[in-house]
Amino acid sequence: MTNFFSSNFKLGILGGGQLGKMMLYDTRKYDIQTYVLDPSQDAPCKIACDHFQQGNLMDYETVYNFGKKVDVLTFEIETVNLEALVQLEKEGKKVYPSSKTLEKIQNKGEQKLFYEENKIPTAAFTRFSNKAHLTEGITNNRIKLPFVWKSTQGGYDGKGVSIIRSGADLAKLPDTECIAEHLVDFKNELAVIVVRNPSGEIKTYPVVEMEFHPEANQVEYVICPARIDSKIAQKAVIIAEKVSKAFEHVGVLAVEMFQTQEDDILVNEVAPRPHNSGHYSIEASYTNQFEQHIRAILDLPLGATESKVGGIMVNLVGKEGHTGDVIYKNIEEIMKMKGVTPHIYGKKQTRPYRKMGHVTIIHENIDEARKIAEKVKNTIQVIS
Amino acid sequence: MTNFFSSNFKLGILGGGQLGKMMLYDTRKYDIQTYVLDPSQDAPCKIACDHFQQGNLMDYETVYNFGKKVDVLTFEIETVNLEALVQLEKEGKKVYPSSKTLEKIQNKGEQKLFYEENKIPTAAFTRFSNKAHLTEGITNNRIKLPFVWKSTQGGYDGKGVSIIRSGADLAKLPDTECIAEHLVDFKNELAVIVVRNPSGEIKTYPVVEMEFHPEANQVEYVICPARIDSKIAQKAVIIAEKVSKAFEHVGVLAVEMFQTQEDDILVNEVAPRPHNSGHYSIEASYTNQFEQHIRAILDLPLGATESKVGGIMVNLVGKEGHTGDVIYKNIEEIMKMKGVTPHIYGKKQTRPYRKMGHVTIIHENIDEARKIAEKVKNTIQVIS
Repeated sequence: MTNFFSSNFKLGILGGGQLGKMMLYDTRKYDIQTYVLDPSQDAPCKIACDHFQQGNLMDYETVYNFGKKVDVLTFEIETVNLEALVQLEKEGKKVYPSSKTLEKIQNKGEQKLFYEENKIPTAAFTRFSNKAHLTEGITNNRIKLPFVWKSTQGGYDGKGVSIIRSGADLAKLPDTECIAEHLVDFKNELAVIVVRNPSGEIKTYPVVEMEFHPEANQVEYVICPARIDSKIAQKAVIIAEKVSKAFEHVGVLAVEMFQTQEDDILVNEVAPRPHNSGHYSIEASYTNQFEQHIRAILDLPLGATESKVGGIMVNLVGKEGHTGDVIYKNIEEIMKMKGVTPHIYGKKQTRPYRKMGHVTIIHENIDEARKIAEKVKNTIQVIS
Repeated sequence: MTNFFSSNFKLGILGGGQLGKMMLYDTRKYDIQTYVLDPSQDAPCKIACDHFQQGNLMDYETVYNFGKKVDVLTFEIETVNLEALVQLEKEGKKVYPSSKTLEKIQNKGEQKLFYEENKIPTAAFTRFSNKAHLTEGITNNRIKLPFVWKSTQGGYDGKGVSIIRSGADLAKLPDTECIAEHLVDFKNELAVIVVRNPSGEIKTYPVVEMEFHPEANQVEYVICPARIDSKIAQKAVIIAEKVSKAFEHVGVLAVEMFQTQEDDILVNEVAPRPHNSGHYSIEASYTNQFEQHIRAILDLPLGATESKVGGIMVNLVGKEGHTGDVIYKNIEEIMKMKGVTPHIYGKKQTRPYRKMGHVTIIHENIDEARKIAEKVKNTIQVIS
């Protein structure tokens, strides 16, 4: 058994954003020594890690040399140099999730093929190597409007995803490799956080539900537990576990899914790391997703995934029309409400729709939490 | 309203030990800029604060100059230079808890007199300016054996406190100002965390109970909620609130109390800061004591103090006979148990009885938590 605690053991994290920052609360709690690599000198992880290094996550040499310094390497963002991970593994370095898993997930075309090969239910799709091929596919009736366009590379936080309903929508797309996916008519968008360690121990968190704004069609609330039939929830959990096992994933995996009008569950996509849909766990769960990720990649026993109370997460994004030094207007008003915890990611500058933080609302009664969440949403403003 | 979040606001913390370290999880969560002063370059707070300074907490110039740099000053240890705080306040600096409050608490003789003056129930006592006076007091029958001896200055973690039953016990005492206190025959040792902000908002946490080892007479478990009659609990809460108000305390105040055989509540002593008896709150409470302290000293609204689940805290202290690089033996065994979270303070070297960390056990059922806590206690060992 390696001695991780207050020892010379070194954990490396590729990426120094808010996910890394929240992971560092738990490496600190365990006094595990950390090294973080991020391109920005203003990265939220710069403090609280033991050693911060500025560098390009897509550069082979940078990632390889960083990886050589540590005992176990993980990442908090998928867009990292894969070849460096492959080489590090060849040299015996522990990289979790593995390069093999990441390779299948980094490219959304490969990810979809993987679901097909492994009989994991997912929306029908066609892959196109560039925009000309995509246009040809429409002309030839291989695909029909409307459809969901996804760039196969580099998508993040809804970027690289569009619903294409018209020629005008199509005209706006960049010229990249992409997939065109059947537009699913869904009742609910759900997610399950699965955690798995190298020994094969596996646990799932309760199903969460993304509640959309009725007009804006934007996710407003992530709600745990999802207000759905327990049989549907069970189905979602079984599929999520299957996905984690098929990927031989190690660490926290967020599996995003659709519940169709026919109550089928279709896997939309996965994130091989702690995820926005699991942020509620910091306050609501026996073990939060960040601690759980650390337990998993160090092959420690996994923690309990049950909830202590109901939890709802609201993202804090920069308000339209505001760019500059951030002000969290009315934050003291939401702090008066029961069970409300703001999380500020530490970005000094706001801009429209920039993810600046999130707020968790917990309550023994999820319907009460939902009411408070709405008040939170209507009260706090991220302005400049 | 001051803008504390991702701003130029500066919070100063005197002391950089484990209490400060745990406070920094929450300053990080809120992205509040922190300055920490501690004598040791190996202080647990050295990472995760924005600016660390090595320096003597009892030195006037050091504390004064440090305080000048920040907007609000607090402390995580009571043994700090009081005159520097007085001067900083005179110059308009916000110091919480205030120098006036700290002055009454720093000297245990003053603290006891304060309870008498404010009609707060406490054990009878006599104050002695040195050891010769104390011996004289015994000879003159002003006090009788057995009694509790407490050094008026610098006591910490049970140091500076002895039960004097014989002349031999007396002989071992150092020559300091002290009090001799009536030895209370208590049923239970209880504590209540009270939090109060400068606006006068006040909240209390549920009463916790210290469970003692039947033979060793050492606190083994801090249990929340205390397994006592609700009327006794109510009495303890009322007294704790009275203490906080009498001190005009700002921040978290831990009030330690005895429940006598006659079910009277006597105040033993207070700690004007987050305290060991409130560590359970990190996992078990709606708002943990560290976040609560920060809310209070910044005059933000206080958070809910209710528990989400039952919580028990076990201290992790260095095993007898072990000095050197620390190893947390069987830590992976306790991590298998439901609702168990180890907290490692980050001290690289263990020595007998050194406080190295703590473990929290949470469970919806406090009796289940108690069973798991005993397994934890019997499993993990802090060795070298």
